[in-house]
Amino acid sequence: MNTSFEPDQVRALTFDVFGTVVDWRGSIIREAQAFGARNGVTADWVAFTDQWRGMYQPSMHAVRSGKRPWTKLDDLHRESLETLCERFGFAGKVSERDLDDLTRAWHRLAPWPDVVPGLERLRRRYVLVTLSNGNVSLLVNLSRFAGLRWDAVLGAEPTRHYKPVSEAYLGTARFLDLQPPQCLMVAAHNDDLISAASLGFRTAFVARPTEYGPHQQTDLRPAADFDIVTDSFQRLAEQLGV
Amino acid sequence: MNTSFEPDQVRALTFDVFGTVVDWRGSIIREAQAFGARNGVTADWVAFTDQWRGMYQPSMHAVRSGKRPWTKLDDLHRESLETLCERFGFAGKVSERDLDDLTRAWHRLAPWPDVVPGLERLRRRYVLVTLSNGNVSLLVNLSRFAGLRWDAVLGAEPTRHYKPVSEAYLGTARFLDLQPPQCLMVAAHNDDLISAASLGFRTAFVARPTEYGPHQQTDLRPAADFDIVTDSFQRLAEQLGV
Repeated sequence: MNTSFEPDQVRALTFDVFGTVVDWRGSIIREAQAFGARNGVTADWVAFTDQWRGMYQPSMHAVRSGKRPWTKLDDLHRESLETLCERFGFAGKVSERDLDDLTRAWHRLAPWPDVVPGLERLRRRYVLVTLSNGNVSLLVNLSRFAGLRWDAVLGAEPTRHYKPVSEAYLGTARFLDLQPPQCLMVAAHNDDLISAASLGFRTAFVARPTEYGPHQQTDLRPAADFDIVTDSFQRLAEQLGV
Repeated sequence: MNTSFEPDQVRALTFDVFGTVVDWRGSIIREAQAFGARNGVTADWVAFTDQWRGMYQPSMHAVRSGKRPWTKLDDLHRESLETLCERFGFAGKVSERDLDDLTRAWHRLAPWPDVVPGLERLRRRYVLVTLSNGNVSLLVNLSRFAGLRWDAVLGAEPTRHYKPVSEAYLGTARFLDLQPPQCLMVAAHNDDLISAASLGFRTAFVARPTEYGPHQQTDLRPAADFDIVTDSFQRLAEQLGV
């Protein structure tokens, strides 16, 4: 894919968010621990966090396959949390309001340290947008919390399709009035980049080797010939010559 | 409508853009004059600009009524321009590329002087989004050009309905996961605010008495009992106590 890659032909950078921009795991572990302390319930909050994220892909499956009408990620997160309440033994011990607040922990995720200065530099030349499975209000709240500045919040909810369904990528390019090769997909996940590349997007793999914790086994290295391979948004800017 | 208005109950400010945020008329007159000089065609560019804007509401009518599938504003602007080329006698004398560029003059509109500092102040407390009939790429380019920072670019294209169709307002509130009374519609136009208020939005009328030029007759004063009446984004911030 990286033959004849010309940074000047790219007009917009489209960002995966969970894992690529923000450290969801560290943030959710901290939020879950505080939730436990506040509500007087104990659990292995690291396992709880990993299982919550483990339900992420399966929860979108019924929507992707069309078996279920469009349902935003906040609602899927909340449904998964109900299951975890049973599994971890605190169902009925916590108020609906506290469960709502814990669901909104996904609106309060910390960015990786290179992200804010990296985006500031990248936006001098490129249009920067989200291409995330997060819903708009989640991304708006998260971006205000983390200090992220986007030119537009796009992705699953505005296109009503979850990645890796093609329309999530193509509809985002269409909102920007760009052709896929004018868009550079930035992600820490091989499958996201391979899907984007198959539709003509340019691709940048940004390694996030601790996204899934200290023993991460997946996405440590690029699995295809992406246009750019790097490990921070600052170095991404350097490689693009910004 | 302004009984019991509490600024603390508002979470998001939803902005009309053309006329409220940017001086489309002054900007398009300048762009059209430069276009004429570049292409060696003469016309009354003030009349040309007023007639182009005059075709704005009629051009959306077929989409609003459902007679025509969703068509974004860039395409409507371009169709209106074709008609004006005939009317002003320069059809066939100008390249398609130059007509494309003139259509994109709507992506390069200057903000009123109070807008950039006013938005900076308002965003300390409120989520700021567009609720405009402009398409996403137009608003993204315009915002980069004018230095406007939004939390999200919403309105007609993401909801696929042109104001004043209810769904343009309600769909925008839904993207934000807010109820209408948590949204304050900010506009220089009575009809936009009356439509928003009828759906439960809070309303701020910001007078822009020269939007339509020195002899403007409409929208000089509020035509209903809006929650806030003012004449700049700075004073809007003051009235909201930001």
